[in-house]
Amino acid sequence: MNKNAFRQLSYGVYVVSTWDNGRATGCTANSAMQITSEPATIAISINHDNYTNKCIQDTGKFAISILGEHSDPGIIGIFGFKSGKDHNKFDETESVIRGYLPVVADACAYVVCDVIDRMETTTHTVFLGQVVDADVLKQDDPMTYAYYHKVIKGKSPKNAPTYIAEEQPCAETAAGAKYVCGICGYIYDGDTPFEELPDDFVCPVCKQPKSVFVKQ
Amino acid sequence: MNKNAFRQLSYGVYVVSTWDNGRATGCTANSAMQITSEPATIAISINHDNYTNKCIQDTGKFAISILGEHSDPGIIGIFGFKSGKDHNKFDETESVIRGYLPVVADACAYVVCDVIDRMETTTHTVFLGQVVDADVLKQDDPMTYAYYHKVIKGKSPKNAPTYIAEEQPCAETAAGAKYVCGICGYIYDGDTPFEELPDDFVCPVCKQPKSVFVKQ
Repeated sequence: MNKNAFRQLSYGVYVVSTWDNGRATGCTANSAMQITSEPATIAISINHDNYTNKCIQDTGKFAISILGEHSDPGIIGIFGFKSGKDHNKFDETESVIRGYLPVVADACAYVVCDVIDRMETTTHTVFLGQVVDADVLKQDDPMTYAYYHKVIKGKSPKNAPTYIAEEQPCAETAAGAKYVCGICGYIYDGDTPFEELPDDFVCPVCKQPKSVFVKQ
Repeated sequence: MNKNAFRQLSYGVYVVSTWDNGRATGCTANSAMQITSEPATIAISINHDNYTNKCIQDTGKFAISILGEHSDPGIIGIFGFKSGKDHNKFDETESVIRGYLPVVADACAYVVCDVIDRMETTTHTVFLGQVVDADVLKQDDPMTYAYYHKVIKGKSPKNAPTYIAEEQPCAETAAGAKYVCGICGYIYDGDTPFEELPDDFVCPVCKQPKSVFVKQ
């Protein structure tokens, strides 16, 4: 079996959010698909280890913020590489309330759902949500997972189904040695040599400091 | 609720196939997502009205042929706009057998699954399949649903969840009046005026004859 075949499946980049006892929380996800048209339902897949999973089970509601190519890629890091259990992710991201749920303001569109069914697997829950609200927030091409990999040069968190252990960044930087973020895998490719970046430089994807970058 | 928000979800373009009493059959689909990593499972969504749905229920197996940007777009029409009940779709498409299932030879990758669970909705079945075989067939960028719409200029069959009734083609042809395939919605945009095309011209997406095109 060649697992590289799985990488040819196409995905978007989303933030799935809900409430945790009145506190907004969420996580980055790439797995969402519309199932029925009228009434509209959408299925999402969330790892059991994501704190958002428990919160969706508790509230019976979730929102999908659909990121666009011009959405701040830092959002992916905030929601993808930290746990919402002990981190207020929405403190770092402008949000709006839509359909009574927190939505990322910088997304290009959102969908709010009531959970009506679910399917359990060994590591993930597939939630089926009936859409109760949806709208376009700004004109933008939706960010695909391929765009995130190729243009933003990010990689998968370890609890994403699309994570492949041997995944290796391969782009070359034009400015000398290659530096890779040890947290999210972002490959620095700016014009300024990495060594000359200011000390307060942070990874544009996961917002971790310069010190976590690894020379390769 | 603004259903245009749903269009910002990202999808690929796939042929889901299986056996019908020894006869290969299948349908075009855009809804597939990996759920777990080890063992790998993938969820697909198939309309109850698709004959392939019944055949997957009978065999407990399905293959996903992942189309690439250079796959013949005619495959989408063959598998998307005709019923496998009374049409041998694989007679018109070169196939290979992988993991004991028929796979489209012109796809860029394939995944073969055993059904291990399912979730029913009003119109669609979400099948959860455990991967038993997968491989890359050729180097190509996977075709996204957005690419199919923007570049190939096709639209959704009526039983796809992404079908929107008011969907209207909007591209202009450089060669005079606009002609749209009445079956699949493909908009002719060749350099030769449509009226001057040979009588044996067929829609490149659904392979229907020139006579089904409508002047708009």
